[in-house]
Amino acid sequence: MTKYILSSREFRDEFITQIHEISDEYKFIHYDEATSIDWSNVAITIGWKEEWAGKLLANASLEWVQAISAGVDTLPLAQFAQKNILLSNGSGIHAQSITDHLIALLFMESRGIFTAIKKQAERQWQPNGIPYSLLSDKEILIAGTGKIGQALAKALNFFGTQPVGINTTGHAVDGFKETYPLEELIEQSQKADCVINILPLTPETTRIYNSHFFNSMKSSASFYNVGRGPSVDTVALTEALRQKEIAFAALDVFEEEPLPANDPLWTLENVLITPHISGLTPHFQKAFMAIFMDNFRNFIHEKKLVRNQVDVTKGY
Amino acid sequence: MTKYILSSREFRDEFITQIHEISDEYKFIHYDEATSIDWSNVAITIGWKEEWAGKLLANASLEWVQAISAGVDTLPLAQFAQKNILLSNGSGIHAQSITDHLIALLFMESRGIFTAIKKQAERQWQPNGIPYSLLSDKEILIAGTGKIGQALAKALNFFGTQPVGINTTGHAVDGFKETYPLEELIEQSQKADCVINILPLTPETTRIYNSHFFNSMKSSASFYNVGRGPSVDTVALTEALRQKEIAFAALDVFEEEPLPANDPLWTLENVLITPHISGLTPHFQKAFMAIFMDNFRNFIHEKKLVRNQVDVTKGY
Repeated sequence: MTKYILSSREFRDEFITQIHEISDEYKFIHYDEATSIDWSNVAITIGWKEEWAGKLLANASLEWVQAISAGVDTLPLAQFAQKNILLSNGSGIHAQSITDHLIALLFMESRGIFTAIKKQAERQWQPNGIPYSLLSDKEILIAGTGKIGQALAKALNFFGTQPVGINTTGHAVDGFKETYPLEELIEQSQKADCVINILPLTPETTRIYNSHFFNSMKSSASFYNVGRGPSVDTVALTEALRQKEIAFAALDVFEEEPLPANDPLWTLENVLITPHISGLTPHFQKAFMAIFMDNFRNFIHEKKLVRNQVDVTKGY
Repeated sequence: MTKYILSSREFRDEFITQIHEISDEYKFIHYDEATSIDWSNVAITIGWKEEWAGKLLANASLEWVQAISAGVDTLPLAQFAQKNILLSNGSGIHAQSITDHLIALLFMESRGIFTAIKKQAERQWQPNGIPYSLLSDKEILIAGTGKIGQALAKALNFFGTQPVGINTTGHAVDGFKETYPLEELIEQSQKADCVINILPLTPETTRIYNSHFFNSMKSSASFYNVGRGPSVDTVALTEALRQKEIAFAALDVFEEEPLPANDPLWTLENVLITPHISGLTPHFQKAFMAIFMDNFRNFIHEKKLVRNQVDVTKGY
């Protein structure tokens, strides 16, 4: 009996051929072709669709979900746990892209390029009104010290500065001068010039950036969100930006996506909006399939994953 | 007889005290106080003012000019040569700032942030229309392989790419995968995705970026000028941007500064204008005085400079 690998996303033929060469017991199918399949033969999924849940969780065939993104907050983790379904994610694939994106944003701010863009719109040549600083004179707090946080820290180290990190337990991580547990997020943010959110979305991080948080930040500080939208209380953030409780925000993710056309964030002068693009990467298929193949080879022999396994009880 | 060090710029007391401690034969004066001085006692200048030329070049007292910027194209070099006046510049002080500025611009483009800013103004969430790429997939040409070019190359190396360099003779420089002489600028630019000008202004580099140059560039390529405005034929650049002969330009320096309010560049959609800010640096006095003091110590004993001496016959 052929087992299916059901994918939410298309991949180039070269990768599909490789999968079939590793094992002829499994057949890759893209979900567009999946209308007539026997869902009880799906053993593996690449990515996840909400509408699959009913069909795939009703029986016991599904053994492994290889998520495409790093965050797995939209998946039915409790049911995966209950049915012993293995879960791995795409953590690491997006690290370079998100690092590049954040480096652009940090230097845009420190070199006054944001301000210059506003002045250009008014045809105003005003070098004296433009702030400039070195990143190495700033206190940068990165909430999230996983693969993306570490890649960003390494880049900041190159530019002469060591960030402070926030993670679950406060364990030390290479590239960070200090690390603190999640409970100390607000306390540490009081000292920061830049706060960058890359935390996964969990019950603990949902709306962790609330009005109390923004009140505690320096009024000269800036906030960057490339993590998950629901980690932020959007109303509180909007108010903090309006009242200049914080100086600036660059936002790539939102509680509601697409950000509604009438959302006041679009037009606040101290906000930069990007439409969830920071993780887009030009060599995605190759990087993703490197993870999938390593796992697939081990899965078929030992029913084990060797890369990027997620603890479904924790959500990361 | 007290000799004067005439400065175009104010410095903090700590530095002036240090100068006077090194030698009590010299007195630092800021040009605001210089109305009543005997100009024939000025032996050294820090910076240069056009109105000084008549007074300082009429007699033989001036021995050394320590310029503040890296570029010395606005100074009367021929007269310095004729009178054997030593010249040193501020090369290196601005390298970090200009590198940071350029890294912001390069990543803003490669991550689609320029495009996102335009879309934000229209409240448009359009992730699919936004280009993204890795710097390491781009061919980056840096015209100018001095201290700034080398600092930028080192940063690009960190991000996984080696630029191509242009310098006078085509001599090899650390951090560049290849280097070519100035005569090959156009030929090399034909292959580049990004062309960055950091060349000093000399007769050879004046209007070197002309219509022939822009015609030769790829239509998908972008042009960055943080060198000198008069290296660019502004009319030709404006036309190239209008006709989409090149995709994008980020300009920090201009033939006429301030850029006149009615200049068409201000409103072209594929141009980013910054008002000559890329070299601004927060620790300027300290970095500049480190160069000046090293030279001053040697100058008083041996009439020699040990750092940043400029060949007045070449202009860099």
